[in-house]
Amino acid sequence: MDFFQTVEKRRSTRKFTNEQIPKDVLDKAIDTGLLAPNSSNLQLWEFYCVTSKEIKEKMDLACLSQPAATTATALIVAVSRRDHWKQHQELILADFEKKNMNDEKIMYYYKKLIPFVYAHGPLSILGLFKRAIVTLMGFSRPMPRSPFSNSEVDTVAIKSSALACQNIMNAISAQGFDSCPMEGFDEKRVKSILNLPSKARITMVIGCGKGDPEGVYGERVRFSRENFVKHL
Amino acid sequence: MDFFQTVEKRRSTRKFTNEQIPKDVLDKAIDTGLLAPNSSNLQLWEFYCVTSKEIKEKMDLACLSQPAATTATALIVAVSRRDHWKQHQELILADFEKKNMNDEKIMYYYKKLIPFVYAHGPLSILGLFKRAIVTLMGFSRPMPRSPFSNSEVDTVAIKSSALACQNIMNAISAQGFDSCPMEGFDEKRVKSILNLPSKARITMVIGCGKGDPEGVYGERVRFSRENFVKHL
Repeated sequence: MDFFQTVEKRRSTRKFTNEQIPKDVLDKAIDTGLLAPNSSNLQLWEFYCVTSKEIKEKMDLACLSQPAATTATALIVAVSRRDHWKQHQELILADFEKKNMNDEKIMYYYKKLIPFVYAHGPLSILGLFKRAIVTLMGFSRPMPRSPFSNSEVDTVAIKSSALACQNIMNAISAQGFDSCPMEGFDEKRVKSILNLPSKARITMVIGCGKGDPEGVYGERVRFSRENFVKHL
Repeated sequence: MDFFQTVEKRRSTRKFTNEQIPKDVLDKAIDTGLLAPNSSNLQLWEFYCVTSKEIKEKMDLACLSQPAATTATALIVAVSRRDHWKQHQELILADFEKKNMNDEKIMYYYKKLIPFVYAHGPLSILGLFKRAIVTLMGFSRPMPRSPFSNSEVDTVAIKSSALACQNIMNAISAQGFDSCPMEGFDEKRVKSILNLPSKARITMVIGCGKGDPEGVYGERVRFSRENFVKHL
């Protein structure tokens, strides 16, 4: 299916028929998500594909029993995992070693800069010092202003996983199925159902299935582009 | 271009040739971005398309003079605007009125729930009370656990604008051009260049242009999908 048609076709669908969305459609969608760019290629994301009746029912409750969850035949839960940075840094360095890659700048980036950016200690205490240094240096020259706390690292990982989510939803659309991204859920309960640690964050839950025409609420509403787009 | 080919083709490109990326390619990419789903359809995003020499040079410095910025012939700056929630709430309510739409649930959602979710007062003081109430209620039933602070609202808006960014980057790719999402920039300086208030957040800066083959660093590296994908 054509790229632009796919994006046009995707609408948030709040009611699904009981036609099952096949596993290979879900897998292809997630694989397309994994092709999204992400911060420093650390891939701090996870995707839980929920189809079993028992877990789906628990998830539906945690999604506040909204129809986009209860009528969906599958849920994809996009998770941000800042706590995986160290283990993924090691995977990247192992990949470089396998390829005999030893570009100095890239090695410095992954060996020195990544820990500076991702490790802020309990209660982000280390991050406070980093922020102070950067603020001082920032008076005289451009400096990155984040992430200097664990929650700012969460935001970085959430951003990357959101990029993947857009690919996932479009890929579902390209395969003739429908989706609905949800942020109205009980994150604490979702993490408990998926057995996730407190450091994990739920980026969004995507209801997936075959859309019921009633599940799309009228024409797409976008305010005039002059509100959002500026040329400089 | 086929959807899946487009996503496959998109690679983060860190060096561009001096071939200008046409304005209509950029406009089409941004319009494709605006079709992304977003939280409560409040459209808390803005896209600054920078091509003028003077502003581009300032932006290049704020992007720490990285080649993905300096060699780009255009920069798209994706901005998250939590401060626009009230004005956009009014735009949505005006649209409902025009359409004689008065579904009680939807009106309640936009008139009552949206202010509860988006307005947290200076230093998020109101949000503290909201969080306390929700935490108490959450013992007995599922409750949303965020956003209850201004920075959590930022995260919601950042997430929506990231969804749009993925569409933008793919749309650039579908039109035969290339892009690079950047998070390494001086947010304070970018906001000052774009004349943005402190409440605005820069989601990312996307370098755009015609990719130089040297600008793509080898094969795409993704760890094994077993690291990220779980079926439940």
